Amino acid sequence: MILGELEHPIVQAPLAGDPSTPELAAAVCGAGGLGFLAAGYRSATEMRAEIRELRETTPAPFGVNVLVPGSPAVDHDRLAAYLERLQVEANRYGVVVGEARFDDDDWGAKLTVLHRERVPVVSFTFGCPPAETIATLRDTGAEVWVTVTNVAEAHAAAHAGADALVLQGIEAGGHRASFVDREGAPGAGILVLLRSVAAEIDLPLIAAGGLGDGPAIAAVLAAGASAAQLGTAFLRAPEAGTHPAHRAALAEEEPTALTRAFTGRLARGIVNRFVIQHSGAAPIAYPHVHHATAPIRAAARERGDPGGFNLWAGQAHHLAKEMPAAEIVRSLSQDARTALGRTAGRLAAR
Amino acid sequence: MILGELEHPIVQAPLAGDPSTPELAAAVCGAGGLGFLAAGYRSATEMRAEIRELRETTPAPFGVNVLVPGSPAVDHDRLAAYLERLQVEANRYGVVVGEARFDDDDWGAKLTVLHRERVPVVSFTFGCPPAETIATLRDTGAEVWVTVTNVAEAHAAAHAGADALVLQGIEAGGHRASFVDREGAPGAGILVLLRSVAAEIDLPLIAAGGLGDGPAIAAVLAAGASAAQLGTAFLRAPEAGTHPAHRAALAEEEPTALTRAFTGRLARGIVNRFVIQHSGAAPIAYPHVHHATAPIRAAARERGDPGGFNLWAGQAHHLAKEMPAAEIVRSLSQDARTALGRTAGRLAAR
Repeated sequence: MILGELEHPIVQAPLAGDPSTPELAAAVCGAGGLGFLAAGYRSATEMRAEIRELRETTPAPFGVNVLVPGSPAVDHDRLAAYLERLQVEANRYGVVVGEARFDDDDWGAKLTVLHRERVPVVSFTFGCPPAETIATLRDTGAEVWVTVTNVAEAHAAAHAGADALVLQGIEAGGHRASFVDREGAPGAGILVLLRSVAAEIDLPLIAAGGLGDGPAIAAVLAAGASAAQLGTAFLRAPEAGTHPAHRAALAEEEPTALTRAFTGRLARGIVNRFVIQHSGAAPIAYPHVHHATAPIRAAARERGDPGGFNLWAGQAHHLAKEMPAAEIVRSLSQDARTALGRTAGRLAAR
Repeated sequence: MILGELEHPIVQAPLAGDPSTPELAAAVCGAGGLGFLAAGYRSATEMRAEIRELRETTPAPFGVNVLVPGSPAVDHDRLAAYLERLQVEANRYGVVVGEARFDDDDWGAKLTVLHRERVPVVSFTFGCPPAETIATLRDTGAEVWVTVTNVAEAHAAAHAGADALVLQGIEAGGHRASFVDREGAPGAGILVLLRSVAAEIDLPLIAAGGLGDGPAIAAVLAAGASAAQLGTAFLRAPEAGTHPAHRAALAEEEPTALTRAFTGRLARGIVNRFVIQHSGAAPIAYPHVHHATAPIRAAARERGDPGGFNLWAGQAHHLAKEMPAAEIVRSLSQDARTALGRTAGRLAAR
């Protein structure tokens, strides 16, 4: 396992979208953590270019995260009503609502590139690929990780042959990794998820969700995780492609909420105008709504208006520091070690 | 601090209602944890009798938890509609809907008894008493703990003079301890809450919420908690007054949800018929709804019907073991030590 060879038990979450850059992944890898490229919302060609750029910067192992295409049972009446509602937003920003279409995010072509490039770690989000897909990737030497949000998904991923599981607690920023987005119970906190999966499945577990500082990393390691995966903690690093208005919002103690308003799939972000006005009406329809809101979000970003685009953030976003990614990795790891050593010593002395 | 003198960094959550018994608190205290009596839903006289019974069993320090009376802004139309809805439940069980009244749970008389009895630890839930109330209790030698669910409540409790804070994560079973029950963001996971409060407030912190086994306890200790508070973990102990149908439900991997259906205040329980049918309609009206549903819940318990009463449980309830409370304390503590020692050693060797 690559996890066992890392200097620091820290994985950079993929951060699909603008924040993901080869520079960020390179900085994390260079510091002794595991950097990730997010293939989501890139073409297979763009993904390949980023993989090659990263490899030119560092010889260290890295990961590539791919979004598994779904086929949600879209309620077309609700979707149509939501598109009508988005018209007001489009008018506000002087753009046209995007086409609410399905696509598979270049799934087949990406798998082909991943085979050829022999990537060290391939992780999946939004589902578990078929066992044959996993086996074929493993034949290239890749470790295959699957992101899960509950025990049933963990069993499915283990059964399909995953080498490790990324456990996403409800605290996490960005999209919920659920295999199927459903109404209902929003999911378990990371400690509950970690202990519930560890009780049933003997695979390396990478814990994610609201881990904002070294002691939080120490916590999931003590609870049995092989590594901690952090996304929001890197969003303020200069190497990340995070929008300035997004960076500013992260530093405040603003509440976060789960919403489908931006993409039609449940995701956690800082509560802003768009979340407040549209969350109640947003249907389960991904990536349809993602495409529909894309021009609106782009225009809001262009204007620097934090009320009009997705400010993805985990619950502990106010703990994120503005610091080079390599320093973030090293200081998080040092603080985790200190917290673990101190706690183990104190308890032993009792 | 009493926490520093405990053999095990484990606090038994108060478990207001049937599960709370002097026998349970005595067993936890006797094993070297901190047992708690729940004064909630008891009269001051009953509370005093339990305190005296506990003191006859063990010389160890213990705690008493008191519910702070609120004055919710009750929507009387919504409450009336809900009472009408409850009529069907009352008919089903052949009882009469209870009187939907406010009461203060014998608040003044309980404080008087607590002064006289000189209780080692007094903890509060549903609010923070005025600074003078806290100061007067501290003058009797008591430590005063206040239960909080976010950073703002933590600041308020620290400002009022609390000796320690019990941090309740969103994973916790039973009532949310929020000072005011509101619609909206349901709250942070325990690790996020712990790290957020620790970053701003220098008081001993007791972590609660979905802590189901030793490694989960190790986790919150590594993240800076002075102790872990567990409730659901004790519900299957023979010393607890847990209903047999509730015990049976705890052992299954049933989902939990937050609901106001039983009491008019947000609480986490195993999803059953009553939760599914009434959560959407239940108003914020505590303790009005608590009193209204009391006869229905009592009748469902009498019949052994787990669909008709509150099966309070944290998200990790399936990890709870059927075991004497003293053994639970000792094995949780041992497992926490093992997890911490192993993790600290592994990280140091890196």
